[in-house]
Amino acid sequence: MSERLIYLPLGGAGEVGMNCYVYGYGPADKERLIIVDLGVTFPDMDGTPGVDLILPDISWLEERRERIDGLFITHAHEDHVGAVGHLFERLGVPIYARAFTANIARRKLDEYGIGPEAVTTVSKYPEAVTLGNMKVSFVPVSHSIPESAALLIETPAGRVVHSGDFKLDETPGVGEPFDPDMWAEIASGGIRAYVCDSTNVHSPNPGRSEATVGPAITELVSEAKGMVVATTFASNIARVKTLAEAGERAGRSICLLGRAMRRMIEAGIETGVLDDFPKVVSSDDALDIPRENLMLIVTGSQGERRAASAQLANGKYRGITMKEGDTFLFSSKTIPGNERGVIRVINQFSEMGVDVVDENSGGHYHVSGHANRPDLERMHDILKPQILVPCHGEHRHLREHAKLADQKGIANVVAVNGSMVDLSGNAPRIVEYFETGRTYLDGSVKVGAMDGVIRDRMRMALNGHVMVSVIMDEDEPVGEPWCEVMGLAETGASNAPLVDVLEEDLNQFLMRAGTKTLMDDDRLETELRRITRNTTQSEIGKKPEVTVVVSRLS
Amino acid sequence: MSERLIYLPLGGAGEVGMNCYVYGYGPADKERLIIVDLGVTFPDMDGTPGVDLILPDISWLEERRERIDGLFITHAHEDHVGAVGHLFERLGVPIYARAFTANIARRKLDEYGIGPEAVTTVSKYPEAVTLGNMKVSFVPVSHSIPESAALLIETPAGRVVHSGDFKLDETPGVGEPFDPDMWAEIASGGIRAYVCDSTNVHSPNPGRSEATVGPAITELVSEAKGMVVATTFASNIARVKTLAEAGERAGRSICLLGRAMRRMIEAGIETGVLDDFPKVVSSDDALDIPRENLMLIVTGSQGERRAASAQLANGKYRGITMKEGDTFLFSSKTIPGNERGVIRVINQFSEMGVDVVDENSGGHYHVSGHANRPDLERMHDILKPQILVPCHGEHRHLREHAKLADQKGIANVVAVNGSMVDLSGNAPRIVEYFETGRTYLDGSVKVGAMDGVIRDRMRMALNGHVMVSVIMDEDEPVGEPWCEVMGLAETGASNAPLVDVLEEDLNQFLMRAGTKTLMDDDRLETELRRITRNTTQSEIGKKPEVTVVVSRLS
Repeated sequence: MSERLIYLPLGGAGEVGMNCYVYGYGPADKERLIIVDLGVTFPDMDGTPGVDLILPDISWLEERRERIDGLFITHAHEDHVGAVGHLFERLGVPIYARAFTANIARRKLDEYGIGPEAVTTVSKYPEAVTLGNMKVSFVPVSHSIPESAALLIETPAGRVVHSGDFKLDETPGVGEPFDPDMWAEIASGGIRAYVCDSTNVHSPNPGRSEATVGPAITELVSEAKGMVVATTFASNIARVKTLAEAGERAGRSICLLGRAMRRMIEAGIETGVLDDFPKVVSSDDALDIPRENLMLIVTGSQGERRAASAQLANGKYRGITMKEGDTFLFSSKTIPGNERGVIRVINQFSEMGVDVVDENSGGHYHVSGHANRPDLERMHDILKPQILVPCHGEHRHLREHAKLADQKGIANVVAVNGSMVDLSGNAPRIVEYFETGRTYLDGSVKVGAMDGVIRDRMRMALNGHVMVSVIMDEDEPVGEPWCEVMGLAETGASNAPLVDVLEEDLNQFLMRAGTKTLMDDDRLETELRRITRNTTQSEIGKKPEVTVVVSRLS
Repeated sequence: MSERLIYLPLGGAGEVGMNCYVYGYGPADKERLIIVDLGVTFPDMDGTPGVDLILPDISWLEERRERIDGLFITHAHEDHVGAVGHLFERLGVPIYARAFTANIARRKLDEYGIGPEAVTTVSKYPEAVTLGNMKVSFVPVSHSIPESAALLIETPAGRVVHSGDFKLDETPGVGEPFDPDMWAEIASGGIRAYVCDSTNVHSPNPGRSEATVGPAITELVSEAKGMVVATTFASNIARVKTLAEAGERAGRSICLLGRAMRRMIEAGIETGVLDDFPKVVSSDDALDIPRENLMLIVTGSQGERRAASAQLANGKYRGITMKEGDTFLFSSKTIPGNERGVIRVINQFSEMGVDVVDENSGGHYHVSGHANRPDLERMHDILKPQILVPCHGEHRHLREHAKLADQKGIANVVAVNGSMVDLSGNAPRIVEYFETGRTYLDGSVKVGAMDGVIRDRMRMALNGHVMVSVIMDEDEPVGEPWCEVMGLAETGASNAPLVDVLEEDLNQFLMRAGTKTLMDDDRLETELRRITRNTTQSEIGKKPEVTVVVSRLS
């Protein structure tokens, strides 16, 4: 039986977030497998109210657990490492990562009581991990977090480069600069397939280096009169360092606020990626420093309600308040979907008289961590892969990236989550589709996205809820029906309380109903639900969710 | 007693949307009043799930109904005219508007059975309506809808210009071009106060004319291979015309899809603002036209789920389907908060192989309807008002606009909803704050934003719901407690169904509880609710909303 090289995205292809990719080599359906990344995506009120976190559905992997040799984490962003703690026990495979990523992964496993030995720290390329007939190296790339890596996966069918999240940065501030010679050396071995980040394929200009934001930030901070507060993703340690250095240069004491901010800097120092961070003061000490000599670097660049920035906008965080004449800098991009939260924070600061500076203010206070279109082309040109498979993007990104490959004459395929691609031939071929999905972490339990639990919650949010209780003694109602409503107007068309109108209508029905209906729980419930919905509709114009409880005394 | 000139925003100042402003002249608290605009804002899942429409709370106006002489509508956008139908009967004041706006307002009133005579059509400046000691003219301005107007309000204390929504467009396509001479003439009478649109105060470059989008759209449409579908706001009749003309020039038949699109064009023709619109075909006829000869202009530029664009993205609308090689053009801007819906539509089209062109595609396919910062300055310079009051904007916009006035040495004030400003003196002065709010149209009834109805719905969406039913005969439970859950995981920590664990815990409590508790409905309910929440928390980590029904047989 012939062997094959396969690629299967389980998350991250057709969406931004929740990355989880599978590679395999061997006889069909007997391939030895490795997993690349195990990330999360974030819930929102629109589609997943009350959910804490969204994880990939790993049932495909669980069913093939015996064939999986390892999990490789490319970098420590939540959409790549976030599900490791929550799902480790269901997979139980060895985890490999570079030091900084391993540090973060171990913290996540620790929350589930899993020891640090679950993660093996791997040095960068040319060091490699050999598992069966696959040999995997972590090739350093620049991104908005330290020690991000592409993976070089060597197989009997040739070499695959999984790009990870990356940009081409020759002056990244923290970590290794872009090294075209190293990539040329890797390419010289021939690249069968390049599975590549597509996030910024629509950005037409070459990406800017992390080094380009320093001057603008330094100027802003040194010209500011009052306190300066800056926010960025805590994991963007290079940026946090850029911000802190700008503050230091302006003679300001630096204070880091927000749990994630302190945790990330801690991880940076522990793993040696951050060895010359400016001295910081505690928030207690910050209270004694004149505001014009202080700079805070805080969490909450996306307007998250519980983060430091939102709490400062609400009035106070750890005793610190902002006021007229202070400056707040978003050294970040607003992720689509987070606009409302960010705008809310900006307006709250505006009410305080705080000047807000952001990506729309004209200065270069932020650069993206992803390769823009010309940067992608540059990598295509260096690697000269036989096959290009776009990953890490919504469908529109994958498709655009595939069009770009077409222009360059590179064989390619748009493979969304669940599409198993055979990379063994001259051109990629989708050989099978698997159902993929999402698992919701909801409170302390995991709920399937299709279980209907969240759908019911959304229906209650849209339609309100009516509870109907009826007590029966054989075919005789005992007393009158009882209703409780939640999330519905108190009165409607009749100018009487909605519950009164409902109880009256339900009672009249019970008086009229035949024995057959009254003795049959299903029929009775169906009728009571129907009447409840109709009456509510005619009273207040809404069809609510209804729970009917028929209690029988005998 | 001395008389005064007052301004009071009830909506639209400190938010974008739901515009409603009050002007008054007379002795304090006895001023004769006029209302300017009565708009709506739109609900979202984040804060107002299931709500149909958000209206201003007009209780301040209702309490002073006898003092109100009229309602002036500046233009027919929903955030200015949308609440007229829903709130007319509670105010019952005469409405004044230009012909196109009056046409739209009458359609809204008609839905409530109110006749067309409720609205008086007023010609443009220098025609004026005199009500008591105020004389009001509609001064034409350009905007993204026909017959938009500023208001010139002449009072014994001087002239106020209420800018309305406007831009400076010398080639607007539909309607009057910007006329600096007319404005200079108005200014020559002296302007006490300019109450001015602040939406685009953060946009640093002069706004572009509607005429600048024609060439890019024409080029796009003529080069397209398959069917072309374009979307924009239906009320942007100049744009719809620009799109239709581009299609006509490319030899394509034009078909308008979506109720709002057809209604707006109808209003445009009825009122004479649109006299040379290209010939259109029905959607039935469109089915027989080769796709390369067809252009659809459709509703749904904001990704609205029920609009034509979303339905085409879902597969079909009125028998028409899109396919590979077709082009979809967003001739529009995505309003903050609508990103997710728009991106969903784009990705669905991407899956079909449809090429999507939008504001990020590099061409000039859209221009804003609001004055940018240099345009605002130009108006300040022409009008030379004694006082500037920024309106129509979030706090950040109002504050930035006020800063701009400071730079120009114009007295100003940031007055958010509920701030009554005395405009009689040399500088504006906030003389009183009133509570303002929002009213939700929810089904067929109106619910106050603070009534708690929507809060309960959101809580159910976040936390789920448990219904507990207990039947008591004196201090004896009859049977066992019964639970129904909605929106919660079926099983948790105990690996038994959540309802079973709940019923068991509640039953044990009833067995143990003393007569005093069992005989007291309030105490019993409180305890049952507490146990339900605690058990759910320990089983699945969520504290649900709980409805308890205690039924007593005697």
